[in-house]
Amino acid sequence: MASRGDSPPPSQSKISYREAGVDIDAGDELVERIKPFAKKTRIPEVLADVGGFAGLCAVPSGIDDPVLVSGTDGVGTKLKVAFLTGIHDTIGFDLVGMCVNDIVTTGARPLFFLDYYGTGKLELSVGENVIKGIAEACAESGCALLGGETAELPGMYAAGEYDLAGFAVGVVSRKKIVDGKRVAEGDKVIGLPSSGLHSNGYSLARRVVLEAMNLELSAKPEKLGGKTVAEALMAPTRLYAKHVQAVLATGADVHAMSHITGGGLPGNLPRVLPDGLGVRLGKPWARPGILELIAERVEENELRRVFNLGVGFVFVVAKEDEAKTLEALSALGEAPIDLGEIVRVPEDTDFEARVIFP
Amino acid sequence: MASRGDSPPPSQSKISYREAGVDIDAGDELVERIKPFAKKTRIPEVLADVGGFAGLCAVPSGIDDPVLVSGTDGVGTKLKVAFLTGIHDTIGFDLVGMCVNDIVTTGARPLFFLDYYGTGKLELSVGENVIKGIAEACAESGCALLGGETAELPGMYAAGEYDLAGFAVGVVSRKKIVDGKRVAEGDKVIGLPSSGLHSNGYSLARRVVLEAMNLELSAKPEKLGGKTVAEALMAPTRLYAKHVQAVLATGADVHAMSHITGGGLPGNLPRVLPDGLGVRLGKPWARPGILELIAERVEENELRRVFNLGVGFVFVVAKEDEAKTLEALSALGEAPIDLGEIVRVPEDTDFEARVIFP
Repeated sequence: MASRGDSPPPSQSKISYREAGVDIDAGDELVERIKPFAKKTRIPEVLADVGGFAGLCAVPSGIDDPVLVSGTDGVGTKLKVAFLTGIHDTIGFDLVGMCVNDIVTTGARPLFFLDYYGTGKLELSVGENVIKGIAEACAESGCALLGGETAELPGMYAAGEYDLAGFAVGVVSRKKIVDGKRVAEGDKVIGLPSSGLHSNGYSLARRVVLEAMNLELSAKPEKLGGKTVAEALMAPTRLYAKHVQAVLATGADVHAMSHITGGGLPGNLPRVLPDGLGVRLGKPWARPGILELIAERVEENELRRVFNLGVGFVFVVAKEDEAKTLEALSALGEAPIDLGEIVRVPEDTDFEARVIFP
Repeated sequence: MASRGDSPPPSQSKISYREAGVDIDAGDELVERIKPFAKKTRIPEVLADVGGFAGLCAVPSGIDDPVLVSGTDGVGTKLKVAFLTGIHDTIGFDLVGMCVNDIVTTGARPLFFLDYYGTGKLELSVGENVIKGIAEACAESGCALLGGETAELPGMYAAGEYDLAGFAVGVVSRKKIVDGKRVAEGDKVIGLPSSGLHSNGYSLARRVVLEAMNLELSAKPEKLGGKTVAEALMAPTRLYAKHVQAVLATGADVHAMSHITGGGLPGNLPRVLPDGLGVRLGKPWARPGILELIAERVEENELRRVFNLGVGFVFVVAKEDEAKTLEALSALGEAPIDLGEIVRVPEDTDFEARVIFP
């Protein structure tokens, strides 16, 4: 806005929308380019021919007393790393992962996803890559990319920058909602590995790696095992929708599920535990290299509260169903982590202290 | 980020999340402050006690073959006017209006809404006012504020600025979807007045009013009829959900509905018309003062394509149901606008040319 204010037009000239910084044609072109990506995500429930103003998706038939489960999230300042590295085709996995991994914790099957893409000046190739990634992640999660908004806001974002928000809706039968209420002492706690930091703690991660350590994006510090800083920081968030569906399909008695995001294990595991219960973590597991690198400059306690410690998603299952849960996950090529078990804790235990590290 | 880079910490000190610019406590405090607002928007379908990671809302019973209708939108650079004026408690009406007015065009009843609030550094009172407005608008639209994300992204937004994205979901019986397919020659076209510009065209509006005309926010140009520039530019978007419900409740044969946003009447009316049909607009209607002011510096054709021209929402109804539609709207205290009627146009008429101005 400021740069435009420097040269006001002569007093009687007329002003157009384009001159004011909004290029409707670029927006229309982006819509055309992303149509094929969105089309590939269609599920049978989508009504494709109607809804000039909105996306339409039928409630799947055969679900007794269906309950809609929804969540919204962004990807935080992982965006800043996308801007620095110019890698825009995987940030969509982060966006979809942040939203869809949340809703599947209830046992919901993902149905559809919408995205909001806000930027100062639309760069077509960047926008196309971002939304292509979103669509690929939707397809992997089994949900339709049903709509989206590309907003060009001149003067709101720095050149080359954008923000993203995602919105996911799923459905579950009321009787099958997984809500943690049946979690009991002795339940097994099984983790799924994350790919790295996923989309949390990037303000701290960037501060440590790019500023305090002053590492180049192309650097390959030993702890990253051959990966560059850029690759390690941009590793896309893993999508756990299919793992949840596979475990539920075995009939395993899943008592709770938790998506490990901001707050880490101590912030997210207790969210699905009844009062008086906690998690005793057992033997240590392998942590991603990027976390080990950051650990050089962040206290262990802070590390635990900010990052996922290499565990992206957690199942709490009845002890007798541990084997079939592990089997279902192994069949997907996973290496599930034996995190520990549910234990009694005093009723007045602090929220985060209910996760007991060894 | 740049300002923080100026003073790197001594090489072996440990770095905390707060030091990296993220204040988890402020986020938690905002969540507490907005709980009572969100609670007031609850509808009976909301499952309030479950869902640590997501919002849950039952599909309303009694809807044959329910179809979910969803939409996402932002409020564009009307935000810049909010920042300039310090008025943050009505931008939520704009956000909810942009999304919910879209989904109700299908005949859907709004169910729930989620918001994304991205900012560089969370200012509690601003955030509280923004979300209070969102909750009030949700309540007026009959939908639950089911969730939201407040994202603190250090270095992504200028001080005091933020972006907003909204997501709305509604439900309609498949047989009752209003999709424009039955629009026919002779149908009546009825408009509902807007409150001003709603949330479209603000990059142009700001350029004209605040830059080219160089008007102060406190100025009261004659065309604004006693209002200040700030008041006229910040007039909250009107919410049309209850109007739609009232008209549908009369049993009137509503053939199409259109939410007049970016693109104006020529961009939005043809979206719900079958090929070969257009709208012949009749006698001129009163335009908001802010539009008349902007018209001094924008060509009439551009004005029509960018702004709503004082019409926020449009019903296309069977001619014989015009009277009951008008009655239902008048009963809500509305002054509906007789816009004109549906006419035949050659099949190859350009999209926007299908709206025929007198």
